[in-house]
Amino acid sequence: MAGSVFGNIFKVTTWGESHGPALGAVVDGCPAGLPIDEDYIQKFLDRRKPGQSEFSTKRNEADKVNILSGVFEGKTTGTPISLVIYNNSQISKDYSNIAECYRPGHADYTFDQKYGFRDYRGGGRSSGRETAGRVAAGAIAVKLLGEFGVEFTTYVESVADISIDYSRFDKSEISKNMLYMPDKTAAEEAAEYLKNLSADKDSSGATVKCVISGVPSGLGDPVFDKLDARLASAIMSIGAVKSFEVGNGKLASKLKGSENNDEFYSENGEVRKRTNNSGGILGGISDGSDIILTAAFKPTPSIYKAQNTVNSKNENISLEIKGRHDPIIAPRAVVVVETMAAIVLADALIMNCGSRVDNLKKIYDR
Amino acid sequence: MAGSVFGNIFKVTTWGESHGPALGAVVDGCPAGLPIDEDYIQKFLDRRKPGQSEFSTKRNEADKVNILSGVFEGKTTGTPISLVIYNNSQISKDYSNIAECYRPGHADYTFDQKYGFRDYRGGGRSSGRETAGRVAAGAIAVKLLGEFGVEFTTYVESVADISIDYSRFDKSEISKNMLYMPDKTAAEEAAEYLKNLSADKDSSGATVKCVISGVPSGLGDPVFDKLDARLASAIMSIGAVKSFEVGNGKLASKLKGSENNDEFYSENGEVRKRTNNSGGILGGISDGSDIILTAAFKPTPSIYKAQNTVNSKNENISLEIKGRHDPIIAPRAVVVVETMAAIVLADALIMNCGSRVDNLKKIYDR
Amino acid sequence: MAGSVFGNIFKVTTWGESHGPALGAVVDGCPAGLPIDEDYIQKFLDRRKPGQSEFSTKRNEADKVNILSGVFEGKTTGTPISLVIYNNSQISKDYSNIAECYRPGHADYTFDQKYGFRDYRGGGRSSGRETAGRVAAGAIAVKLLGEFGVEFTTYVESVADISIDYSRFDKSEISKNMLYMPDKTAAEEAAEYLKNLSADKDSSGATVKCVISGVPSGLGDPVFDKLDARLASAIMSIGAVKSFEVGNGKLASKLKGSENNDEFYSENGEVRKRTNNSGGILGGISDGSDIILTAAFKPTPSIYKAQNTVNSKNENISLEIKGRHDPIIAPRAVVVVETMAAIVLADALIMNCGSRVDNLKKIYDR
Amino acid sequence: MAGSVFGNIFKVTTWGESHGPALGAVVDGCPAGLPIDEDYIQKFLDRRKPGQSEFSTKRNEADKVNILSGVFEGKTTGTPISLVIYNNSQISKDYSNIAECYRPGHADYTFDQKYGFRDYRGGGRSSGRETAGRVAAGAIAVKLLGEFGVEFTTYVESVADISIDYSRFDKSEISKNMLYMPDKTAAEEAAEYLKNLSADKDSSGATVKCVISGVPSGLGDPVFDKLDARLASAIMSIGAVKSFEVGNGKLASKLKGSENNDEFYSENGEVRKRTNNSGGILGGISDGSDIILTAAFKPTPSIYKAQNTVNSKNENISLEIKGRHDPIIAPRAVVVVETMAAIVLADALIMNCGSRVDNLKKIYDR
Repeated sequence: MAGSVFGNIFKVTTWGESHGPALGAVVDGCPAGLPIDEDYIQKFLDRRKPGQSEFSTKRNEADKVNILSGVFEGKTTGTPISLVIYNNSQISKDYSNIAECYRPGHADYTFDQKYGFRDYRGGGRSSGRETAGRVAAGAIAVKLLGEFGVEFTTYVESVADISIDYSRFDKSEISKNMLYMPDKTAAEEAAEYLKNLSADKDSSGATVKCVISGVPSGLGDPVFDKLDARLASAIMSIGAVKSFEVGNGKLASKLKGSENNDEFYSENGEVRKRTNNSGGILGGISDGSDIILTAAFKPTPSIYKAQNTVNSKNENISLEIKGRHDPIIAPRAVVVVETMAAIVLADALIMNCGSRVDNLKKIYDR
Repeated sequence: MAGSVFGNIFKVTTWGESHGPALGAVVDGCPAGLPIDEDYIQKFLDRRKPGQSEFSTKRNEADKVNILSGVFEGKTTGTPISLVIYNNSQISKDYSNIAECYRPGHADYTFDQKYGFRDYRGGGRSSGRETAGRVAAGAIAVKLLGEFGVEFTTYVESVADISIDYSRFDKSEISKNMLYMPDKTAAEEAAEYLKNLSADKDSSGATVKCVISGVPSGLGDPVFDKLDARLASAIMSIGAVKSFEVGNGKLASKLKGSENNDEFYSENGEVRKRTNNSGGILGGISDGSDIILTAAFKPTPSIYKAQNTVNSKNENISLEIKGRHDPIIAPRAVVVVETMAAIVLADALIMNCGSRVDNLKKIYDR
Repeated sequence: MAGSVFGNIFKVTTWGESHGPALGAVVDGCPAGLPIDEDYIQKFLDRRKPGQSEFSTKRNEADKVNILSGVFEGKTTGTPISLVIYNNSQISKDYSNIAECYRPGHADYTFDQKYGFRDYRGGGRSSGRETAGRVAAGAIAVKLLGEFGVEFTTYVESVADISIDYSRFDKSEISKNMLYMPDKTAAEEAAEYLKNLSADKDSSGATVKCVISGVPSGLGDPVFDKLDARLASAIMSIGAVKSFEVGNGKLASKLKGSENNDEFYSENGEVRKRTNNSGGILGGISDGSDIILTAAFKPTPSIYKAQNTVNSKNENISLEIKGRHDPIIAPRAVVVVETMAAIVLADALIMNCGSRVDNLKKIYDR
Repeated sequence: MAGSVFGNIFKVTTWGESHGPALGAVVDGCPAGLPIDEDYIQKFLDRRKPGQSEFSTKRNEADKVNILSGVFEGKTTGTPISLVIYNNSQISKDYSNIAECYRPGHADYTFDQKYGFRDYRGGGRSSGRETAGRVAAGAIAVKLLGEFGVEFTTYVESVADISIDYSRFDKSEISKNMLYMPDKTAAEEAAEYLKNLSADKDSSGATVKCVISGVPSGLGDPVFDKLDARLASAIMSIGAVKSFEVGNGKLASKLKGSENNDEFYSENGEVRKRTNNSGGILGGISDGSDIILTAAFKPTPSIYKAQNTVNSKNENISLEIKGRHDPIIAPRAVVVVETMAAIVLADALIMNCGSRVDNLKKIYDR
């Protein structure tokens, strides 16, 4: 309830500061008997690793995950899974630059307001590095969901005004370009845009889309724990996200009911929908079609351009932020969106077991 | 955890179906000593009451709130406040029309998938009527926040493509027109649009904006319980909401860092921001400036036009929905957005008391 | 988190003061498809009704339960079940006697310390009457557990020094005597003791035992949510309970390991235990044998004898409590112990569904 | 909700198996600004360390705590505090002895029933070693409470039938004898008893008492989160605890109201109680007097004596447990009882801040 614990049964606790000795996560409530190992989790962490492209920071972070508990003979035991990532490169630095000033667009000021002081080293707990723990924990959720046929396709949909063209959509392209865009042409255009922006000491916003297929119908709960509400909470909790949409999202506000409603039809004894404006969720409960989410990321607030701001003595100053910063957040956040969505769905999958007396009877077989 | 309980300390439980004998809410964790009475709460319920305009349903719902516990001598006692609204107009109806079919855009299909059957009378628990409980509970949150100077301005910002013009913004206008728009001209234009739409048996989407002033800095928690993540969860849990934005929202994805960052400056010893693209929240924690939220509502899914769909025997059918339905959801949802935001903020206000040892010392005075 | 919400998935919220207009409970998370009606619940409420014996208060409380939501066509729908009991006999009384003084053994002083004031009418929220909501909610838990073969035997085991003799144990006797004791002789002896005590304006303590058979093995979670820890929390939350024991309880502290350990043996392919000192729980998880709980109730603190105490002006006074008070709490609390235990077990039954990937596969059948 | 997370705001998550690479805890929700370091926490861990006396196991566990996050410049930052204890002595052993059989009085059988398999090395998650994480986390709670004048006196009150004599009570003696008893004579007698028991390959039960002074009045919440219910949950969650008592505990069931009620009196303008049978809690809320708890521990279930039991093939076998085992659990558990109680009180201290509008006004100063 103080912010670093998430989920009802599949419950994730993360901890750690950007420049502390380590960061990590504890996953409680993962069902027993799921095959998992460090290599599987590592692949997810590698997707958010910096230093992979010319648009991400060059710090040499190994981000090597260690499983310290909860896995025995290659399978989860049902007890908490502790995941630790040691910070290798804790070279002592001069933080006086940011220790005493409030960077625009950052949490420096609000942390001081809330707590009276802050761990200013590399942004401390408010650093994007905090998401490493989420990704490690969420990889386990993806693995669990995979056992039930759930699959994720997550990518950057737009960079500033450069959107992908769905007529050129190529899933295999996502992992081939630096920007995780499923459209080679758009990726090249966006790369060129970012190059110029970097030269101009500036940064760019972007959107990330996540499409989840194979989700059983019936997940999510009415009223406050609607599946889209839970997903909104998870995705909006990622630093820099400024909007969350499900299905056609904000566009729905401009449509007529006759345009927006998805017609049901029956085919081979199965209920289907002709369109999927709802994004796979009706009344907060999954309907069996693809779940579609979109998150908008603001531009990286740390830019090299000089900015006016205030220091901790309330003096007006001009600030030039040093160090290495990505000119765009979204590409590295693709895997964060995916794993956070997975944590929500894994929790909903487990929670839903108790929704019917019939379900309980399958387990306690009476 | 099964969906009808919300909040950490200021905890709201709602219950009730559209056509059951009553619906209501229980508020646990409201601090003792808050002056509250039924009249205060009633004003909020009246704002979501149908039958108020030509664009809302004509059912004669009194929606009269009763406080059954938790208030003594005009003040909250610190124990649960039980709020009940009896459904007066439970005339028995013929529901065979909707009992056996899955209305497009509704939760009929997903409730059946999840629970095996459903209370189909008037939509049961998935009816918009469920929000009456939220509004009653949230009115208490608004009252609590008012004690600390927090104020809400909530309104319809756009209907389909008709947006308000901020140069004509007039707060007092909100309560004067049927659409709760702060711009008389836009309201008239939208009214005309809706009239034509109604004649065409169709409905429209819209957006609602909520601006919250006077929020102390420091509310919200890092990582998963960021204030914007909590607000997203609350607002997305309102039926028909398809997107949530904080501050400049999705627009941030199109901006540069130098455009999007809000500069801090110092004036008379106070830290301020020149702009408020962040919407009053940095790193998930309130910064003392206005909190700004936008929610997009889809068009009312119940339309009079014939629609193709499926019945519970999996047969393809054509459906014409009877009964009374608003051609637009947003105006009556304005107060729902406001009260849900208030519940989140009241909870955050209380939760934040324990964020510093200094705070505790003020209370336990050592 | 503010005290009136209990449970993880099968979640019970109670509300209401002793002399307010009504009290009740909301049950969220009850699985859909459970047959339930007001008559079933009423039988449980009748067991805690006052005025049934010469040792319980003579107030004429109808305690009639009303189901206001969550049940449709005789079955639970999976949505919140709202239960209300109206207080018929709200005759206005003169409370000045207790409004201004702190009754020994009561919560008057601590409520004032915590909240600044209190609803003093009949003890307000701290009255034993609060348990009516628990019993109504717990009756549903008993019904759910019954579907899986779980059965409860709950009774008064001792009154002061008068204990039942297990050689005379007769389950059918429990409902035949005023004291809910399964031993006619002990019940008569205790009745005589209480009669004399009443004449002496005094009251007596007692113990209640609850034996639960048919519990599937595997319920409960390691570490903090051990099944016995959850049960302890539930039972100790009943006003006037001063100790909680599982299995042989405190006696275990006096035994040797060789005496206390329950030997396992195999019979007809099933694992059994020769003794049940552990009370059906090992390592916090049910082992399939009877769960055995004992709660000690303090004597009714409201006695007719004059007592020294303090008033709200901090003056030393002598107090004679008026009104009607049972000389013993335990008999009416038998059903409270039973239903609270049932709430814990129902929640654990549902929670345990997600403990194994195998279980999930039974439900999502892949 | 799956068992390894405890608390509302001051929230503790523990993880780790007896013979895994490490075990630890994460404390979320600790207020910012509390001075803390590894040395302080280490002192608590040293109190539960084995190898300290002739009655505890001789394994050479360093149990060295490492703070990996949440502390900066010697003070808590308000973000999660990650505590890790590496298991140095992970020598590979032959576990075939216990891997295939169900030890009487242990969780082997129930873990297999719940999860389908178990980490059998040293008892895995159900080992008493799991409490190391609790103690590390709870040490921080003790430190926080110390800032508000709360102090703990925790000791072994009885070993089998040998109880301390309160006329010989000497607090300073607790840390001087191997059994943590505040009565030198009783400690010597108990030591002699245990020596003989060890020679006989057997073990003994015991009781632990915890007295907490300086607790502000007003902590705890009515109904389900009564302070004694929370404490019961915390203490009963410690492996081997079979009963929990508050105040005079089970004895209250034998007393009359006139004997059991604690008279209030006023002295120098303060409300006091002449006796403390209630154990510092009335109606679930602290009254400012000492909180008194008693826990009964069963005898160590691992004994060297041959025992009849069953193996995982359901065959009846005779088992002699190898390895090193304490003949008594309670002395090493003294610090576990203390720290678990502290976690409950720290959480209640923070939770109570929001109980009154007055309190909030002290913090938000309006």
